[in-house]
Amino acid sequence: MLNFNYSIPTKVFFGKNKIELLADNIKQYGNKVLLVYGGGSIKKSGLYEEVIESLNKNKIESWELSGVKPNPRISSVRKGIEICRENKIDLVLAVGGGSVIDCSKIIAAGYYYDNDPWDIVVDPRKIGKALPIATILTLAATGSEMDAGAVITNPETSEKLGTGHPNIAPKFSILDPTYTFTVPKEQTAAGTVDIMSHVFEVYFSNTKEAYLQNRMAEAVLKTCINYGKRAMDEPNDYEARANLMWAGSLAINGLLGYGKETEWSAHEIEHELSAYYDITHGVGLAILFPYWMEYALNDDTVDKFVEYGVNVWDIDSDNDKYEIAKSSINKTREYFNSLGMPSRLEEVGIGEEKLEQMAKGATSRGTLGRFKPLEAEDVLSIYKSAL
Amino acid sequence: MLNFNYSIPTKVFFGKNKIELLADNIKQYGNKVLLVYGGGSIKKSGLYEEVIESLNKNKIESWELSGVKPNPRISSVRKGIEICRENKIDLVLAVGGGSVIDCSKIIAAGYYYDNDPWDIVVDPRKIGKALPIATILTLAATGSEMDAGAVITNPETSEKLGTGHPNIAPKFSILDPTYTFTVPKEQTAAGTVDIMSHVFEVYFSNTKEAYLQNRMAEAVLKTCINYGKRAMDEPNDYEARANLMWAGSLAINGLLGYGKETEWSAHEIEHELSAYYDITHGVGLAILFPYWMEYALNDDTVDKFVEYGVNVWDIDSDNDKYEIAKSSINKTREYFNSLGMPSRLEEVGIGEEKLEQMAKGATSRGTLGRFKPLEAEDVLSIYKSAL
Repeated sequence: MLNFNYSIPTKVFFGKNKIELLADNIKQYGNKVLLVYGGGSIKKSGLYEEVIESLNKNKIESWELSGVKPNPRISSVRKGIEICRENKIDLVLAVGGGSVIDCSKIIAAGYYYDNDPWDIVVDPRKIGKALPIATILTLAATGSEMDAGAVITNPETSEKLGTGHPNIAPKFSILDPTYTFTVPKEQTAAGTVDIMSHVFEVYFSNTKEAYLQNRMAEAVLKTCINYGKRAMDEPNDYEARANLMWAGSLAINGLLGYGKETEWSAHEIEHELSAYYDITHGVGLAILFPYWMEYALNDDTVDKFVEYGVNVWDIDSDNDKYEIAKSSINKTREYFNSLGMPSRLEEVGIGEEKLEQMAKGATSRGTLGRFKPLEAEDVLSIYKSAL
Repeated sequence: MLNFNYSIPTKVFFGKNKIELLADNIKQYGNKVLLVYGGGSIKKSGLYEEVIESLNKNKIESWELSGVKPNPRISSVRKGIEICRENKIDLVLAVGGGSVIDCSKIIAAGYYYDNDPWDIVVDPRKIGKALPIATILTLAATGSEMDAGAVITNPETSEKLGTGHPNIAPKFSILDPTYTFTVPKEQTAAGTVDIMSHVFEVYFSNTKEAYLQNRMAEAVLKTCINYGKRAMDEPNDYEARANLMWAGSLAINGLLGYGKETEWSAHEIEHELSAYYDITHGVGLAILFPYWMEYALNDDTVDKFVEYGVNVWDIDSDNDKYEIAKSSINKTREYFNSLGMPSRLEEVGIGEEKLEQMAKGATSRGTLGRFKPLEAEDVLSIYKSAL
């Protein structure tokens, strides 16, 4: 186990009707709020009205930034910062999924940054003070509601980059699983893949004897496997939605990665797909991860795949090591398929054209990962195998 | 899954040499410290000197309360509060195991309480403001380094009571596994049992479909089973010590219990033993827990024991339900025995004399638990079966 500094300061109010705690908790920070949301889904579901009612009743003034898209754009961030500065906002309230929350985080940090906010996406060290952020989550996926990271897209440069800083962790997040009842099948599936992929990035690691972390990571993976399909088939199943929602937060709030070398290479590889083709992040991950696993499997890493196969997929530990490893990868792909996810880039309209360009892009900040270090040519091989 | 409010604000600096962060983190709260510790073990190990050196070098003034005993006494708390008030202490620094930390917590809260601090042990609602608390942990066991609880003993009334309040959670804790290399075999064993018993209290629960929490609880149990004996046999095994240390914190910081009904009845039953006979908490738990399990096993609870047996002890799930359940209890007792723990009260010099009195004491605040609710007569039965 490696040394680590643990800090997970976000408070989580989890369960039915927890929105009743919203106003009191906002007021600890002030009474001028920027409400950030996406399309009309929170209006259709009634959540928007519920939020506005709570704010009004408690004399909290609010301004709005709506229309934040999946793979949130730096242009939305710029707009949000403007509104905050004009109105001396006290707190940024994100109501939505990861894109809305990520956008809110960079608005909150950008508020105190004098130049263009794309700078603080490119270089997290430029993040300093930030406005307090709160979230009401409507999608179990990115874990942004409980972590200190954000991913922003710049269409002008075809870049999709991750950034992060302790100051942009939300002060509190309201996680009411009933808000995810209306999430469509495909998004439920993509969210489940996203959660599992966050675990993969910290689970497949060179660190020996992070035994506790590994067993906890398996706990989160099993939860996704147990409830992902069920939530698709029974969208109003509270227990399925609740387990997925909490799994999403714990997958990436730091808990599973503390004390380990972590990987995050498949995410970088996928970010290129979303940046160039604007596909859903979870869909890209579902396609790429099994190919990444196949590429990463070798004599140095096979034992880790055996651990994965035996503990997560209940594969008989008496089998041959490589047999277990390959079977664990197949089971992963089969599970993603059972969620309706594609297995090949062609299925989402991605051909050979930009693969080299994307492989270079993915490695533009250096070698990816340490479990299986990847250069541009390795990334290209993975893309090609996934065609 | 039940609704819950998650807040685990304690920062943890985990690993070798993390003491280098001590002074800077203390200074965020002031420069006058009450150093609380137990017997001479931290002097023998050199940790005391290391702490003093760090304080001196950084111009942090310190006062000392030493001699805090296992099952810490309210008299130590009173003494600590006096020193704090006389010297306008800014932060209470606990260096030791759970007893030292628990004592420090009540000193910190008692500082702001005008009457006798035993009041705030008896009635947690009387806890208000508290001095900031920091800890340097030397024993993996109680989890007090990352939670908001404390257990204090009053020998005058033969009471050992648990109390708690969010304000007494440590601001930060330094967890360096090397500080536990010198923990004797018996204490390593008792600590491992203590950690496992904290998990049992939240694992055995009526709450259905807290699937994620259950799998995480099993992760902590497996970690204890994997490393407890190893740490006894190889006291300087860093990985064993590290896994146990982190398991101890995660077992009771709230993570495993959020969203569930929790039990805590075996702890109440054990507290009576320690209050009357001053035996080691973990030893009392090792004796009592298997008997509590046997008493709790019935048609309503058997499925939970099957889950435990199959997932934690790898018992074949095709076996008869009761066979699995009983086997899981036997394996628990056998594991405790393998750590050198006794199985009967007689072995630690406890006879029939005070059983009735203790059974009444354990239930003096009402029925214990909900998984298997216990009245005084039930507790007495458990004591008697354990004789």
